[in-house]
Amino acid sequence: MTITEAPATALLTDHYELTMLQAALASGTAHRRSVFELFGRKLPEGRRYGVVAGVGRALEAIEAFRFDTATLDFLADERVVDDTTLAWLADYRFSGDVRGYGEGEAYFPGSPLLVVESTFAEAVLLETVLLSIYNHDSAIASAASRMIAVAGGRPCIDMGSRRTHEEAAVAAARAAYVAGFGATSNLAARQRYGVPSTGTSAHAFTLLHDTEADAFRAQVSSLGAGTSLLVDTYDVAEAVRLAVEVAGPELGAVRLDSGDLGALAVEVREQLDSLGARDTRIIVTSDLDEFAIASLASAPVDGYGVGTRLVTGSGHPTSAFVYKLVAREDDEGRMVPVAKKSTNKLSVGGSKRAVRRLSDGVAVAEVIAVDADPEPGDGTTDRPLHRDLVVGGEIVGRETLEAARERHAAAFAELPLAARSMTRGEPLLPTVYQS
Amino acid sequence: MTITEAPATALLTDHYELTMLQAALASGTAHRRSVFELFGRKLPEGRRYGVVAGVGRALEAIEAFRFDTATLDFLADERVVDDTTLAWLADYRFSGDVRGYGEGEAYFPGSPLLVVESTFAEAVLLETVLLSIYNHDSAIASAASRMIAVAGGRPCIDMGSRRTHEEAAVAAARAAYVAGFGATSNLAARQRYGVPSTGTSAHAFTLLHDTEADAFRAQVSSLGAGTSLLVDTYDVAEAVRLAVEVAGPELGAVRLDSGDLGALAVEVREQLDSLGARDTRIIVTSDLDEFAIASLASAPVDGYGVGTRLVTGSGHPTSAFVYKLVAREDDEGRMVPVAKKSTNKLSVGGSKRAVRRLSDGVAVAEVIAVDADPEPGDGTTDRPLHRDLVVGGEIVGRETLEAARERHAAAFAELPLAARSMTRGEPLLPTVYQS
Repeated sequence: MTITEAPATALLTDHYELTMLQAALASGTAHRRSVFELFGRKLPEGRRYGVVAGVGRALEAIEAFRFDTATLDFLADERVVDDTTLAWLADYRFSGDVRGYGEGEAYFPGSPLLVVESTFAEAVLLETVLLSIYNHDSAIASAASRMIAVAGGRPCIDMGSRRTHEEAAVAAARAAYVAGFGATSNLAARQRYGVPSTGTSAHAFTLLHDTEADAFRAQVSSLGAGTSLLVDTYDVAEAVRLAVEVAGPELGAVRLDSGDLGALAVEVREQLDSLGARDTRIIVTSDLDEFAIASLASAPVDGYGVGTRLVTGSGHPTSAFVYKLVAREDDEGRMVPVAKKSTNKLSVGGSKRAVRRLSDGVAVAEVIAVDADPEPGDGTTDRPLHRDLVVGGEIVGRETLEAARERHAAAFAELPLAARSMTRGEPLLPTVYQS
Repeated sequence: MTITEAPATALLTDHYELTMLQAALASGTAHRRSVFELFGRKLPEGRRYGVVAGVGRALEAIEAFRFDTATLDFLADERVVDDTTLAWLADYRFSGDVRGYGEGEAYFPGSPLLVVESTFAEAVLLETVLLSIYNHDSAIASAASRMIAVAGGRPCIDMGSRRTHEEAAVAAARAAYVAGFGATSNLAARQRYGVPSTGTSAHAFTLLHDTEADAFRAQVSSLGAGTSLLVDTYDVAEAVRLAVEVAGPELGAVRLDSGDLGALAVEVREQLDSLGARDTRIIVTSDLDEFAIASLASAPVDGYGVGTRLVTGSGHPTSAFVYKLVAREDDEGRMVPVAKKSTNKLSVGGSKRAVRRLSDGVAVAEVIAVDADPEPGDGTTDRPLHRDLVVGGEIVGRETLEAARERHAAAFAELPLAARSMTRGEPLLPTVYQS
């Protein structure tokens, strides 16, 4: 067994972060106080809200962002940066402050999801890894939340590991759980994050045996009558009959992985009931997404296994978040708001705070104040959206995944009813800037 | 610094692989000789060929697929499987054979990309991690190859790390390099795989300084006149004038990251030439994909930086590969082809070999023989597509990334001319089964 150092996150980074650092160290600007903001300019087209995920993973990445000997040797050997920069990197440790939206929170265009305050040098280095985590995990959580919204309380299970990068699969299982999924197929997500995992068998197991009856008997004998039998390898009706014969009416579930799931579920439900297996659940798993789940609302289905469309963000595999310098110190030590002057990519300079404005408990606006605290409205209440995540380099924002999951459920419950509809439209809330 | 064990790949796996194993161990079928095949039923809609990537990473994952003490303790504590299964997993080591398409090879519907022969127990466990790697890496390589096809020899650079999971980013940089990209922004990809990395500065660097002139002077002073200056933070024409004033006509490149890139490139080229900076290159980087690259073919552009659309597979972030049991031993020790009988998911049973059939050096068919070697055609030549990757548990298929890159270039050159067109259509080659 190889023994190695814990995986550092420092090289999960774009080359230019280091060359900018080198040039800034040389010009004397590297240590200017700076404010970076992580946000999205817009939601994916037609989507009405987004869901923040990856916060806990981002905090781990900040903590592990160190340049160990092997990394420094690599950078030196390859002459990526000069010796002054290498010496500075050897002592790197983020010592600034980070506040941001809690994990599981809903977000809208312009929501200041993370505000990172430190020196330019310290904060710029975190850009790539923070964006990677937020862009990926939030894309999955945003898709997952919509699936939960239409599943009507029926459990959704992540089965997408095989359709995405093997490590992205673990993060996807975690993000889906934050957004309300009940379980995952991914064992590493259970080991690392405590996400419940489930699984029974694939078609290969049935095909391995000489007959379907042999396969069912082997599975029930080993995994118990509460297991889920896959009934669509050959003939569904015959398999359902056999499944109840083998497992008895205590059979936990049958799984359908092909065909017209809605029509099949009706037939299978009738057959199960007629065989006395009234408590046997029907799980469906073939190419589901939020639209397919919605279309199965009236079918007698007890759970959804979602794969490809979950782990690829259901058409939007990334969140298009950016990480922008919004303010920095000038020669006299004053903080100056800054923003690129580009025609098609609007940014608002300055350090921001945000609240969700509620009227009778329903969210009505995302209010963002620049270089100030948001002013309250008339007859509305404001819920602050920023939590302290890092203070003076110390990670203070750790929480359980259950806390993030609860935050998501609460934030979703607060959204206008249209959040439950899959109809395309504008963001559910207007983003209102105060300055 | 924390010291931990090297990351094992065994838990990057679906729960049901282990429960199937448990049931098969109990029923006595676990050790039946089995053949699994990794393949795609179809190409993404409109795509005309795909590119295999991830082969080298998959071989690493097979080698690292071990159940160490911490993993076994976890599985025991959580009662994922029974003691008999745990004991078997403790000794797990893949001892079978794997052959498959070389990394960088083109593929078509039904191409048997991997053929895994071993016992059921040994081979089924590899399903999830092999699919994760192949599905992700091939999606990136397939998109990258199309971008290279239309870039007309101009270099393409991967800048997508921030828009995908942080580890997927490293794999994406590697896959894009296999498909012909010249470099990546990702430093971990350089460290782990030797992919060339590049990078200079972002808008934040310009905004950090009091003036654009200060920023340019700082960058050129530290990184040299050969650097690339980002000229669209404020006014492009003024920035180009300033860039040449600061760096001289030896300025390496200017980068445009917004606006109408084609029109801007024409203006900037004229301005650079008029300032005597005839060798200064123009790099463009805003939301590019294969269609945007094609539309810039006549613009005076010297290189493309591609981000989001590369790392998300340009609309197809996964490859839809499956891993199916296609043959297994029966009670008498004979191998029996098997396949699921489902209406909408066709599989062909049996162990396969494949050749690319060529006529006058141009690929004309993907010929797949079942349980036999392909029969040659008339007046055509056949190029075998399988390489031995693992023999008796020994990894024999390791090769350099350069070898994979060369294989891709050769395989692409062999395809019909339509491979260079972005027009949607049917797969370029028919898949012909012989049995």
